[in-house]
Amino acid sequence: MADYDEFTRFRQRLNEKILAQGNLGIKRFFALDEQAYQPGVLDAKTKELMGLTASLVLRCDDCIAYHLIQAKEAGAKKEEFFETFNIALIVGGSIVIPHLRRAVDFLEELDRRLEKFPNSEGKGSAH
Amino acid sequence: MADYDEFTRFRQRLNEKILAQGNLGIKRFFALDEQAYQPGVLDAKTKELMGLTASLVLRCDDCIAYHLIQAKEAGAKKEEFFETFNIALIVGGSIVIPHLRRAVDFLEELDRRLEKFPNSEGKGSAH
Amino acid sequence: MADYDEFTRFRQRLNEKILAQGNLGIKRFFALDEQAYQPGVLDAKTKELMGLTASLVLRCDDCIAYHLIQAKEAGAKKEEFFETFNIALIVGGSIVIPHLRRAVDFLEELDRRLEKFPNSEGKGSAH
Amino acid sequence: MADYDEFTRFRQRLNEKILAQGNLGIKRFFALDEQAYQPGVLDAKTKELMGLTASLVLRCDDCIAYHLIQAKEAGAKKEEFFETFNIALIVGGSIVIPHLRRAVDFLEELDRRLEKFPNSEGKGSAH
Amino acid sequence: MADYDEFTRFRQRLNEKILAQGNLGIKRFFALDEQAYQPGVLDAKTKELMGLTASLVLRCDDCIAYHLIQAKEAGAKKEEFFETFNIALIVGGSIVIPHLRRAVDFLEELDRRLEKFPNSEGKGSAH
Amino acid sequence: MADYDEFTRFRQRLNEKILAQGNLGIKRFFALDEQAYQPGVLDAKTKELMGLTASLVLRCDDCIAYHLIQAKEAGAKKEEFFETFNIALIVGGSIVIPHLRRAVDFLEELDRRLEKFPNSEGKGSAH
Repeated sequence: MADYDEFTRFRQRLNEKILAQGNLGIKRFFALDEQAYQPGVLDAKTKELMGLTASLVLRCDDCIAYHLIQAKEAGAKKEEFFETFNIALIVGGSIVIPHLRRAVDFLEELDRRLEKFPNSEGKGSAH
Repeated sequence: MADYDEFTRFRQRLNEKILAQGNLGIKRFFALDEQAYQPGVLDAKTKELMGLTASLVLRCDDCIAYHLIQAKEAGAKKEEFFETFNIALIVGGSIVIPHLRRAVDFLEELDRRLEKFPNSEGKGSAH
Repeated sequence: MADYDEFTRFRQRLNEKILAQGNLGIKRFFALDEQAYQPGVLDAKTKELMGLTASLVLRCDDCIAYHLIQAKEAGAKKEEFFETFNIALIVGGSIVIPHLRRAVDFLEELDRRLEKFPNSEGKGSAH
Repeated sequence: MADYDEFTRFRQRLNEKILAQGNLGIKRFFALDEQAYQPGVLDAKTKELMGLTASLVLRCDDCIAYHLIQAKEAGAKKEEFFETFNIALIVGGSIVIPHLRRAVDFLEELDRRLEKFPNSEGKGSAH
Repeated sequence: MADYDEFTRFRQRLNEKILAQGNLGIKRFFALDEQAYQPGVLDAKTKELMGLTASLVLRCDDCIAYHLIQAKEAGAKKEEFFETFNIALIVGGSIVIPHLRRAVDFLEELDRRLEKFPNSEGKGSAH
Repeated sequence: MADYDEFTRFRQRLNEKILAQGNLGIKRFFALDEQAYQPGVLDAKTKELMGLTASLVLRCDDCIAYHLIQAKEAGAKKEEFFETFNIALIVGGSIVIPHLRRAVDFLEELDRRLEKFPNSEGKGSAH
């Protein structure tokens, strides 16, 4: 998993290129993706933890990083993350472990950032 | 997706055979699987909906059926199921759709059962 | 793979239930799904064969059935299907073989239907 | 998982159709698939159990059925199957469980067949 | 996704080692893989875009890079790539997005290379 | 695939953090994972090669690296690795090839290490 700054910069730069290209289907999909995690009858934290679970069992590091950032901003605590990790590990098996290691490493980076820049988390484009 | 009775009977009968065979690793895995969804800092409903999300994106019909039963028993409402379905659909793409159709069909069967046998849901062994 | 009539009837009936439920994200995703295969700079047959390739390597029988119907209606011939099958088999490996068997069986059912009802293929809702 | 007779008949009938169609790439892939499990520095039983492990974690019921038949013919015993199941369960997670149930059910059918037709196992085309 | 030179050099060097080792099954599989994309009733560009679709939904960055190179050499234009991306995104869901970002980044690198070395694309061994 | 030292150090450091956090389910899963490969009716080498097969078809580089180390320590020879690779390639298809390249590269690194530090392989925590 890339470090936080590299990850968010590459994501933002390439998302802009993709959206600028003008394929309407892709553009609308990106919008739907963002809307799916808006609070509804389920709150934002629950939805982000569900996105995190899905990302873990599908073993998508960038998706995991993204939902860790969003879930943290929505108020998820360390123990909630680990109960989520446990479910993903049981459902997805030992192939989830390498992604779990990188997730825990990335979570610690998020914690260090929050100490240094207390109000900066998770700003910028989705995806 | 098999109907409710066929599904739960086959599951129970084969689980018993598997556990009776005596492989300790498999036995312990089944126990861990059950424990992962016990309420902790996250409540049972949230955990079951996370298990449902994972089952949908991994496209496992029996797992979907199982978590629909458990989430319903934990109090999940129709709109909560559909917000969960939406997240799974966005994360997993159109290949999730056939499983979504079978999930909605199975949910209706659960509703019909609950009208007929109001206190009978979800009893029996896990998995 | 279910037979043609059972497959299309179940698909249509459940799609209607899903769309009637009112979750906007799911509704819009279904629309995007349909639009992605509309002719653009790539023609409809090419797009359907790409959808078929993706469905084969992801091993989704209902998706395979759907794209076989659509690709046939868009003019795909037997040899084109088999070159598509070959690519999917090489990319996805021997786990694709059971789906290939069911695809070939379903193609023959489509051929028999076309002999009996020459103008009836592929009508009805997408997905 | 289909029962033994239905499974082997459908497999044989459709394999013949696929090979008769004349796509050379597919034909050669089928040959490579068969050769991969021939004894080499690893014996046939070990190779079939490896094929079984791969089929379990990739959750392909027909592939599982096929390798159960072949591994049994190559001499695999019940405890060896269950140690294989345990590894597949740990690597692939709880989504493997429904396939494990069907595998155990199919193994019992194989045992019943062997009692009735002691010398009949596993004949016929591969895949 | 590695940059073009690193990617092609590592691929070529390791492919040579793999083929030199002498396992006949692996050698023949590599040959079948190359033949599957040769023009037949479907032309090379269509086949490469199908290979690209499969690689995107299976989320294999190296396979994506390879088919981007081959499809470009076979004449695929930017809009055709984006219609392919759109189909892969709809079929495979938001977990495809990180691979889409890297694909778009790699495509731009290919464009820059073509400006500097106009006749150099895609030479060398397959896979 | 990271080089041997980087891989084992990161794995060990993060495993310790994960286990120190105190989630009992995760802790027990790690124990089950380690026990699954202990010799039983199947020997350690066979089990590690099965774990390797599963890791290859599920395309998990870190899992592949881990089982290469363990299988080598359990006595697996080059030709046994390549017969395992062949099975994984046939079952999983051409998307396995990039992981196969990295596996062969990592095996050579293990060989070089063994020449320099003849008794050092595979020590340390599992996973």
